[in-house]
Amino acid sequence: MKQKRFFLSEAELPTQWYNIQADMVNKPMPLLNPATRQPIKPEDLYPLFAEELSRQELNQTDRWIDIPEKVREMYTYYRSTPLVRAYGLEKAIGTPAHIYFKNESVSPVGSHKLNSALAQAYYCKQEGVTNVTTETGAGQWGTALAYAARLFGLEAAVFQVKISYEQKPYRRSIMQVFGAQVIPSPSMTTRAGKDILTRDPNHQGSLGTAISEAVELAQMTPNCKYTLGSVLSHVSLHQTVIGLEAEKQMEMAGEYPDMVIACFGGGSNFGGISFPFMRHKILEGKKTRFIAAEPASCPKLTKGKFEYDFGDETGYTPLLPMFTLGHKFRPANIHAGGLRYHGAGVIVSQLLKDGLMEAVDINQLESFKAGCLFAKAEGIIPAPESCHAIAATIREAVKCKEAGESKVILFNLSGHGLVDMTSYDQYLAGNLVNYSLSDEEIARNLTE
Amino acid sequence: MKQKRFFLSEAELPTQWYNIQADMVNKPMPLLNPATRQPIKPEDLYPLFAEELSRQELNQTDRWIDIPEKVREMYTYYRSTPLVRAYGLEKAIGTPAHIYFKNESVSPVGSHKLNSALAQAYYCKQEGVTNVTTETGAGQWGTALAYAARLFGLEAAVFQVKISYEQKPYRRSIMQVFGAQVIPSPSMTTRAGKDILTRDPNHQGSLGTAISEAVELAQMTPNCKYTLGSVLSHVSLHQTVIGLEAEKQMEMAGEYPDMVIACFGGGSNFGGISFPFMRHKILEGKKTRFIAAEPASCPKLTKGKFEYDFGDETGYTPLLPMFTLGHKFRPANIHAGGLRYHGAGVIVSQLLKDGLMEAVDINQLESFKAGCLFAKAEGIIPAPESCHAIAATIREAVKCKEAGESKVILFNLSGHGLVDMTSYDQYLAGNLVNYSLSDEEIARNLTE
Repeated sequence: MKQKRFFLSEAELPTQWYNIQADMVNKPMPLLNPATRQPIKPEDLYPLFAEELSRQELNQTDRWIDIPEKVREMYTYYRSTPLVRAYGLEKAIGTPAHIYFKNESVSPVGSHKLNSALAQAYYCKQEGVTNVTTETGAGQWGTALAYAARLFGLEAAVFQVKISYEQKPYRRSIMQVFGAQVIPSPSMTTRAGKDILTRDPNHQGSLGTAISEAVELAQMTPNCKYTLGSVLSHVSLHQTVIGLEAEKQMEMAGEYPDMVIACFGGGSNFGGISFPFMRHKILEGKKTRFIAAEPASCPKLTKGKFEYDFGDETGYTPLLPMFTLGHKFRPANIHAGGLRYHGAGVIVSQLLKDGLMEAVDINQLESFKAGCLFAKAEGIIPAPESCHAIAATIREAVKCKEAGESKVILFNLSGHGLVDMTSYDQYLAGNLVNYSLSDEEIARNLTE
Repeated sequence: MKQKRFFLSEAELPTQWYNIQADMVNKPMPLLNPATRQPIKPEDLYPLFAEELSRQELNQTDRWIDIPEKVREMYTYYRSTPLVRAYGLEKAIGTPAHIYFKNESVSPVGSHKLNSALAQAYYCKQEGVTNVTTETGAGQWGTALAYAARLFGLEAAVFQVKISYEQKPYRRSIMQVFGAQVIPSPSMTTRAGKDILTRDPNHQGSLGTAISEAVELAQMTPNCKYTLGSVLSHVSLHQTVIGLEAEKQMEMAGEYPDMVIACFGGGSNFGGISFPFMRHKILEGKKTRFIAAEPASCPKLTKGKFEYDFGDETGYTPLLPMFTLGHKFRPANIHAGGLRYHGAGVIVSQLLKDGLMEAVDINQLESFKAGCLFAKAEGIIPAPESCHAIAATIREAVKCKEAGESKVILFNLSGHGLVDMTSYDQYLAGNLVNYSLSDEEIARNLTE
């Protein structure tokens, strides 16, 4: 019988996260204070983030960062996640490629997001924080943060993008079961939210609006920190536990990936699975390709511009050197709520600029078609976000079929879609459409 | 660091199912042909079920039944499931008890049901069947069968209890993604359904009505067999893979259960985790207690009567010797749709009669309270069905706390509740109630 799944024992789990910044030849450019245009120092971030997270954010020297023992203990609740050989999918495509996926959907909250939520909640608790705020799109990150906050005895307030709050009520319920307060954004509870609603009473929300509100509430609440589920470098750092495990598991399978593929929202799931493999490209010249799959309706990597921009709609955050569609960009209401973000993390932006990785854009119908094929072949309903990685994988596997090549493809199944079934319903009913953007629309929100 | 989860390697997975009938001192009484009152022979079941399943159903002599290699291969897609030490739950209760759970919710379809669905679809395919029908309550079984049918290239028609079809649309969508046809029962597509709707146009459906319809459709369709997700002995047989794994995993943890607990609908998840441990009670006199947790609104084990009764509402099935509330019993619309069945499997019924196991009834509010406590402590949203096992576990853990005893409790987490969030919503909003039955109501549907 051919082995389908590969696990690590608790003793084999990573004890350190991998900080790719230490190995990058061209380091990410500095974050800037928007008022002074001076580079941000860790202490400038302390009012917003836990101090240790602020230091991790800007750490460009230490290659390995110890995972605190308490976080490692919580990781053992669901890690290692399985590395799975997708025999079913290979057969369905008829490809000679060897397809593997790292199944992060088996985390208690259903996605990779918990890897960073546990770390962030831990550091907040260590530093005496009592309350945390955050934003969430589809709700994967909010669910993870709500659960992690509960485990560490913190109160959590989650601003959920309004369109997702309405489209995906199950995620809201899950967060509430974990005891979090959930507010649809834009809301009237913050100045940022009120301003946005004054300008546009029908604003459907975006990660940009939710971040503005969560940042503002954190700054207004005593003993409260803001937490973020992607984009920032410390979030990708925590997610490297995925790739570090996958590295060992691929070794168990006796293979090494020719391609590593992940969907792309802010970059943490992509960075999480890619960076540990990318260090062998940087340090040893391995030829692996790294492919970020973003939605065609929010194409910051393939059609955005590299420039300094804000991380949120209102402009509360530092200026980040990144590929962006502009912080006022309003993504179409695609069902992959977690990919509706205007910018890319600073590390990934630099790597893309330097040609160490590639990006492809996937339209909505192609993503759901890929998701349904995968579901039938492997029995797992993928999150609409993860469907983008699957679609990119299928494209490559079909190329292998045409060329008769047995390449090894590894992709990250970042989460399951069990609470996204209304999206699948609409796809099956033929109600979904593709959204593409003209150059004029893309240019509209970009300003130097 | 204390070990939280225990896995088996593929080489350690069971290669045979355990047939407790071979070891029972008092075998289950025979199934009867309702017309002749003569005991049913395997060949009497061939028109309805795959032949191998019919033989397994009535096999009272072979202790071990080989798991076909193809089924074992599909098992490796998600098995072993983890045995988990519930440190979080223990802490939340403050109990000295050691609580373990077998986490069947990590199966691709989210519950233990796949263990039997794969076996049933396999045997059907082997015997040249092209179509299968079945019933489903909350949708866990229907989802599993839909996926298993897809894997083996069979067409599946699933009759879903109407109240669940409406309350839980996500499960329907999942079945449809897997390519199954889903029909709310009672429907106008069968004679049984029409008769039921003629008597009561507002009938909300029950597993009894859905079984009648699925049986009828199977009999009317060429090359089609009926499949069942619980109650029958061959279903429990397949589910023993749960307990056989748990036995080895408990050994890895260095403990042996004083109590084994599972929720109870028809008995397959209970039998699955219990029977392998119960053989040590039967053969070696081990003192383990076995506790079936049923809903107070459908109390066949605690308040039903042991008698011959039909398995379905219309009376298409053989007569089964079982604890029953009567085949016309209409359960209240509790959210644990999978536990709304009027009878218990014949093996469990005999074991209960012989005092080898116990049963407790749990009301709806207690079940959801337990589920929310578990979710906060362990991060997994349990299925409303599984909440009953958790509630029974908490009762015992509290007794341990009061007595200062470190007993070892093992329960089966039969599935997750991620697609049951409307139920949790209603619980959190205070909209759920308890249903209890008067002796008169119970007597009404019972006839000799």
